[in-house]
Amino acid sequence: MKMSGGVEWGLHCCVVLSGAGAPVTAAKLAELHDVSQSYLAKQLQLLSRAGLVRSTLGQSGGYVLTRAANEITVLDVVEAIDGVQPAFRCTEVRQRGPMAVPAERCDTPCPIARTMDSADRAWRESLRRVTIADLIADVNRTTPPEILSGAREWLRA
Amino acid sequence: MKMSGGVEWGLHCCVVLSGAGAPVTAAKLAELHDVSQSYLAKQLQLLSRAGLVRSTLGQSGGYVLTRAANEITVLDVVEAIDGVQPAFRCTEVRQRGPMAVPAERCDTPCPIARTMDSADRAWRESLRRVTIADLIADVNRTTPPEILSGAREWLRA
Ligand code: FES
Ligand code: FES
Repeated sequence: MKMSGGVEWGLHCCVVLSGAGAPVTAAKLAELHDVSQSYLAKQLQLLSRAGLVRSTLGQSGGYVLTRAANEITVLDVVEAIDGVQPAFRCTEVRQRGPMAVPAERCDTPCPIARTMDSADRAWRESLRRVTIADLIADVNRTTPPEILSGAREWLRA
Repeated sequence: MKMSGGVEWGLHCCVVLSGAGAPVTAAKLAELHDVSQSYLAKQLQLLSRAGLVRSTLGQSGGYVLTRAANEITVLDVVEAIDGVQPAFRCTEVRQRGPMAVPAERCDTPCPIARTMDSADRAWRESLRRVTIADLIADVNRTTPPEILSGAREWLRA
């Protein structure tokens, strides 16, 4: 099981956009992260389609978050980029073969599917509890201050 | 993000093996589930490699669980088939680009990676709390009794 690598980029972009305090172009985001513009553009498009970022026009145009950083959860970003479908998909194995349970008697989900679903909910719940604002606070606490201020200056330049 | 489809088959096989009360051949497990023998053999091999099932020799040989059903968790089966690697893999995005955090100052995990890790732990914790014995109890409660006894007879025949 592997999540889209775009999730790491998307979350880092949201943290940068929130910390920048001004619109940042896709080109600048790509350069900051040393990643191809076309790859990053794809992730920004997914974030934009989910209504988490938007691009502003004009000379100082670029991407901004559409909401306050404490109103965007990590789950929002993960679902925007990796989709909302649970990793486990029940194909109704129980309805197959000579001893199949007839479809009309499968009105409740299979106990196996229920177990997988509740783990999926626990996972999403955990990601829903953390916002971009929490990440920023953590980044500010754990990153050397000269690197943070350097990055902010570089973004404005 | 998508889990191996083998997880659904593997869990169903473990439930059947635990309910059967006697060794079941791979051929019979495949027929019961109406799935190709070679596909199921691959999942059984993964379960066997993880020490969850073993095959017994002789005329009434076949697969059995190696431990009591209440000593095999859903997580054991998921990890046997889908692997133990977390779905999110941090590639140290923060160490890239002109504003990179130097490697020697990255002694603690990135806050984003930490958030993803703790969600992964919540997911595994949830799957660790349910055993094959719990699934059997649930299957027994929710499956029409005539189908259960029919399946047991069919497996013995
Ligand atoms: S039928 Fe899909 S998990 Fe049991
Ligand atoms: S560097 Fe990998 S998640 Fe931040």
